[in-house]
Amino acid sequence: MMPNRPDASKPAGKSPLLPVDQALAAIIERLPQTTPARKPLEQALGFTLAEDLTAALTLPPQAVSAMDGYAVRGADVTQLPCQLTRIAESAAGHPWDGEIAAGQAVRVFTGAAIPDGADTIVIQEDVDPVAEENGVVITVRSAEPVGRYIRPAGLDITAGQVILPAGTLLSARSIGLAIAAGLTTATVRACPRVGVLSTGDELVRPGEMPGPGQIISSNASFLMNFITACGGHAVDLGIARDKPGAMLKAVQQAGALDLVVTTGGASVGTHDHIVSDLGSSAENALNFWKIAMRPGKPLISGNVNDIPLIGLPGNPVSTAVCALVFVRPAIAHMVGGSADPLQFELPLSVDVEANDQRQDYIRAVISTKDGRQTVTPAPRQDSSMMSVLANANAFIIRPPFDPAKAAGERVWVMPLPPLY
Amino acid sequence: MMPNRPDASKPAGKSPLLPVDQALAAIIERLPQTTPARKPLEQALGFTLAEDLTAALTLPPQAVSAMDGYAVRGADVTQLPCQLTRIAESAAGHPWDGEIAAGQAVRVFTGAAIPDGADTIVIQEDVDPVAEENGVVITVRSAEPVGRYIRPAGLDITAGQVILPAGTLLSARSIGLAIAAGLTTATVRACPRVGVLSTGDELVRPGEMPGPGQIISSNASFLMNFITACGGHAVDLGIARDKPGAMLKAVQQAGALDLVVTTGGASVGTHDHIVSDLGSSAENALNFWKIAMRPGKPLISGNVNDIPLIGLPGNPVSTAVCALVFVRPAIAHMVGGSADPLQFELPLSVDVEANDQRQDYIRAVISTKDGRQTVTPAPRQDSSMMSVLANANAFIIRPPFDPAKAAGERVWVMPLPPLY
Repeated sequence: MMPNRPDASKPAGKSPLLPVDQALAAIIERLPQTTPARKPLEQALGFTLAEDLTAALTLPPQAVSAMDGYAVRGADVTQLPCQLTRIAESAAGHPWDGEIAAGQAVRVFTGAAIPDGADTIVIQEDVDPVAEENGVVITVRSAEPVGRYIRPAGLDITAGQVILPAGTLLSARSIGLAIAAGLTTATVRACPRVGVLSTGDELVRPGEMPGPGQIISSNASFLMNFITACGGHAVDLGIARDKPGAMLKAVQQAGALDLVVTTGGASVGTHDHIVSDLGSSAENALNFWKIAMRPGKPLISGNVNDIPLIGLPGNPVSTAVCALVFVRPAIAHMVGGSADPLQFELPLSVDVEANDQRQDYIRAVISTKDGRQTVTPAPRQDSSMMSVLANANAFIIRPPFDPAKAAGERVWVMPLPPLY
Repeated sequence: MMPNRPDASKPAGKSPLLPVDQALAAIIERLPQTTPARKPLEQALGFTLAEDLTAALTLPPQAVSAMDGYAVRGADVTQLPCQLTRIAESAAGHPWDGEIAAGQAVRVFTGAAIPDGADTIVIQEDVDPVAEENGVVITVRSAEPVGRYIRPAGLDITAGQVILPAGTLLSARSIGLAIAAGLTTATVRACPRVGVLSTGDELVRPGEMPGPGQIISSNASFLMNFITACGGHAVDLGIARDKPGAMLKAVQQAGALDLVVTTGGASVGTHDHIVSDLGSSAENALNFWKIAMRPGKPLISGNVNDIPLIGLPGNPVSTAVCALVFVRPAIAHMVGGSADPLQFELPLSVDVEANDQRQDYIRAVISTKDGRQTVTPAPRQDSSMMSVLANANAFIIRPPFDPAKAAGERVWVMPLPPLY
């Protein structure tokens, strides 16, 4: 679901910037889908259907009662109160296979099959039953329109009907539906293997003490967990140092991969070698983009040893925002689904300045006071500040050239997925 | 986050109905928390912190450059253009430990330590460098206010600071923050073991062909996957038949459990024995509630063998709605967190009638057209219709006695979690 936005950013300065949507479309276009395989539904949570799922059964299989009460003939309860004889009982799992005649009633419970001859239910609250036994005379005080509390056969699903189309993410409720429809397996796309490589001479591994000028490699930890949360299988490719060939070597040693995601080394400074690694041979195709977004301007889309590669910028918040904007839809596409997170318009709690040519992903907090929701941008938006991102529960998404807005005006907001 | 709602439902008919919030509070009140244990951060995605996490490191550890450019003395770039001598280079991981004198500049890249003597950065776009080597004279054409592109030490976090409080759900971004702050483990609460029991003579197991009057047990499949998605460990307790003692026996055979969730057998009909099982001994405390909600009026809160029990109604949509409203917060509470899903106000696409005394969870679809979002209730709201729930992406939540609303008026909407 995409809110209404200006079509594309206009180049305001020296180099034209690529709009986010165009970059995403170009990334997705080159990604293959993973192979389909049959899987038990009990193990399929979070997988995406590769084929339509078709119901094997009709539900309900026959007309059933929607309430606890009595199955009767509608013609018998037009004059009220009236008296009927309870002749039998029909419960879920214990149908009664006789037929109701005039003046008769069958005690029914929710989910019970409607006996032949009956065409309506009087609910137990409208009946004086005398006793819970057959042969007694019950008094019906009130009745709803005929058929009101009957669920007809096939109300929910009909055998042969497509109940979940290909591309559906299998949720708990969709698995429940498929099980109820008589299915036990589904054809889903394999979980893509996504290699995660961080680059930089300044990085040390988690658990090591950084020396002068060094920092702990945390982007890889974020990406490994993020990819897991997106339904991918994350493969740790370690840290590549800032020298020619290091990235290529790490990828070549990793075994089968469907996608490589790198972080760092994506600017054009002297110390950045991913670009030159990718550009160094014919099969390692390369796009080096400046995206009209903030944070996260530099982005690489390429192929390394025929494996698609997305190169994210190295600032932690830039890495995280670009992962949500590009890597999540990439993984969703590889399994035949889509990742179009819901966005909502919410009023700002403060004024914001006009935006420039870059689409802005502003770390923000949605809060509620006296039943009124507002969204508040974090006061500092530096792309190195992981603490600000960890404390945000939403991004305010401002399109390029969005005019200044006053407190109370609405902006588009994307709530952050809980495991993001 | 709770929207503004009338305090409680008023009993309109015979029996007073319990408001949703009161029922939830009463359920949560009796639930113990699981035990805390130390866990590597790499295995902690989706776990909840039992203790505050405190940073071991300051980030950045020293002042660093936010841009590629040149570290200079602000006093040298007040008159522009000016010329400076490049004397050294400082890159992330390769700091330069000299000191800048008047008229000198040090080439820096993003994340590089700022050399002593420098107090500002001129970005490379504002410099004519002649060449990328030391000793050359560079021309600075433009400069931003002093310090603009310097990230001071501790901008993100300071050693000793609480970076993530107890109760935080560990997401990819919070794990990234903790790793960057020098941590490798966290104390989290154990994943609760949640037994899932379906009840009913009409149920057959998935994979079996239902006979006359029978249906496949699908609520348990839903609940097992739902509990997994909530961060619980689901334990299959099978199907208990509608006879006294069946539920008790299934629970007693299951081994250690932190919570039992049952489905079905929760109305007061003749065939419902969960209530009598719970009420049959002193230690099996029992609350049997009629909740002011739709779907899902009957709800059981009890103890079985000292294990807390939540008894959900048996209609599949009632089961699912009550699971989201009661079981998800219950699991979140047991691990020391909270599950307060975001809700948003959206305009209706159609008119809706006034609501009665029950809080309504209306299966609905949020859609966007021409940049305008609306929410549309599914035309049929029968609580047996799993297909309607599977195709919904939101609940419209209408408080008790909500007046009729016209298309275009706003209602509170809860987007459904993707794996729900």
